[in-house]
Amino acid sequence: MSILVVGSVALDSVETPFGKVSNVVGGSATYFAAVASLYTKVNLVAVVGTDFPTEQIQFLIDRGVDTRGLQVVDGETFCWAACYNYQTNTCETLDTRLNVFADFHPILPEGYEKSDFVFLANIDPDLQYEVLRQVPQARLTMLDTMDLWINDKREALTKAISAVDVVTMNEGEARAFAGSYGTLTAAKAILDLGPKVVIIKQGEYGVAMVSQTSYFTAPACPLEQVKDPTGAGDTFAGGFLGYLDKAGEVTPQAMKRAVVNGCATASFTVEEFSVERLRSLTAEDITKRYQELHQCTQF
Amino acid sequence: MSILVVGSVALDSVETPFGKVSNVVGGSATYFAAVASLYTKVNLVAVVGTDFPTEQIQFLIDRGVDTRGLQVVDGETFCWAACYNYQTNTCETLDTRLNVFADFHPILPEGYEKSDFVFLANIDPDLQYEVLRQVPQARLTMLDTMDLWINDKREALTKAISAVDVVTMNEGEARAFAGSYGTLTAAKAILDLGPKVVIIKQGEYGVAMVSQTSYFTAPACPLEQVKDPTGAGDTFAGGFLGYLDKAGEVTPQAMKRAVVNGCATASFTVEEFSVERLRSLTAEDITKRYQELHQCTQF
Repeated sequence: MSILVVGSVALDSVETPFGKVSNVVGGSATYFAAVASLYTKVNLVAVVGTDFPTEQIQFLIDRGVDTRGLQVVDGETFCWAACYNYQTNTCETLDTRLNVFADFHPILPEGYEKSDFVFLANIDPDLQYEVLRQVPQARLTMLDTMDLWINDKREALTKAISAVDVVTMNEGEARAFAGSYGTLTAAKAILDLGPKVVIIKQGEYGVAMVSQTSYFTAPACPLEQVKDPTGAGDTFAGGFLGYLDKAGEVTPQAMKRAVVNGCATASFTVEEFSVERLRSLTAEDITKRYQELHQCTQF
Repeated sequence: MSILVVGSVALDSVETPFGKVSNVVGGSATYFAAVASLYTKVNLVAVVGTDFPTEQIQFLIDRGVDTRGLQVVDGETFCWAACYNYQTNTCETLDTRLNVFADFHPILPEGYEKSDFVFLANIDPDLQYEVLRQVPQARLTMLDTMDLWINDKREALTKAISAVDVVTMNEGEARAFAGSYGTLTAAKAILDLGPKVVIIKQGEYGVAMVSQTSYFTAPACPLEQVKDPTGAGDTFAGGFLGYLDKAGEVTPQAMKRAVVNGCATASFTVEEFSVERLRSLTAEDITKRYQELHQCTQF
């Protein structure tokens, strides 16, 4: 089986109360691929400029990620700068420079269209929809987004949301998109657009997975320190879809376990800046935290 | 078996985005007793002024609550006024008038000292300690507090915390008391003072129960609307201790189930203002939500 991810490969500058990094490897597709590749074959589609230090993502290739879909074009790589305060749920974007991303159109190399699972990471919803049209036979499609698209491209986002199986958003984003004060009502409003499942990310509190007939929650792993929350959502998605791909079934029970696996995965990401913790991460590490989450929640 | 609760019986004025009430029945001991009495005999110690509409808590007596410990003294009843915003985790206290509470000293009527469980609701920590000295044989003692005592009576609060088995605090209070940015580190700092268990209340996200060797979380019940969060923490405690009293054992497994029962209980409280939803509440109602929480969390 295999997973297609379309998203960003970026250079991030991030400051948190626990440190600061500049122009380090980031991007939603990078984070996602770093962990999904521990479970299955990942087909990556993204774009970088000629300034991108590709040797920094050699570890993805070493994990079998197919990078034929990573376009390298003249110009500068997508840059994102952000600052988190002590309440690490709160992120202030300081700067976003699309650079080569501005003219990007996802092109799927031969074979990518046969991917079983598709993760449309946080990019322009018009591009997400372009990709969806190229993978009509995918077993399960999942979409992430952010406030930028909720505010600026609401119509295109609604169209993309209506066409996928699973939508994942941060709690605040879901509320903003739905115009609702409650998380549950926000999730239901999104479900009404067509998706079978909405996964609301609640930062240090974990996630809630909502369908028309069910509600499931999983906590985040208890951590003594969170250094940098960047990438937590993308690695949640990587652990979620990676688990489903490996499980080989998309039953309600497998979805629950996939959510827990996603939470276990994200907990490693936030322990270090950038993708540093993920370079040495193994599926066994994740399984251990999955079991800890089992202990934390079963009664 | 039986539970002793020492706390406030008050007149509350509360405004939320969903309505407003003035001088309605409130108080930590009232909320606690309203639900703990569905499980066991509750011995109540508190004070009200002659202005208090005692017929409004007749339903407690009807549920078998022993109110011999409810002192009625000349003067005005303790008043609390607060406002919640849409993010109903956030409460702004507008006014606190201790009134008859200012000179209150808890006196335990004969027999109360034999209570198996003790809940020291949010009152002056010096009074909490006074009560503790009167119940040396209690099977389990539990203490709640608030920012007022954390800021103004830190030393007395530390002394009381060191002498109980279970401490419960809101997340923000625990962080403030421990001087810690993380919930887990805050809980551990409190555990280091002596309690066996710390229960961190996280509002709409549920609770985390932490001991030196274990961590357990339970979500809040998913609700489409929260009208008024007042009393959620006290009814959590009522559902928690009520469950333990009925279970007849204080094992780690019983504690986990008691936490879930507490979450199920609190979810009713917030559906209406004051104690209105609790007047008709039954143990069967709570059990039904307990089972829903089981569905929401087991995988």
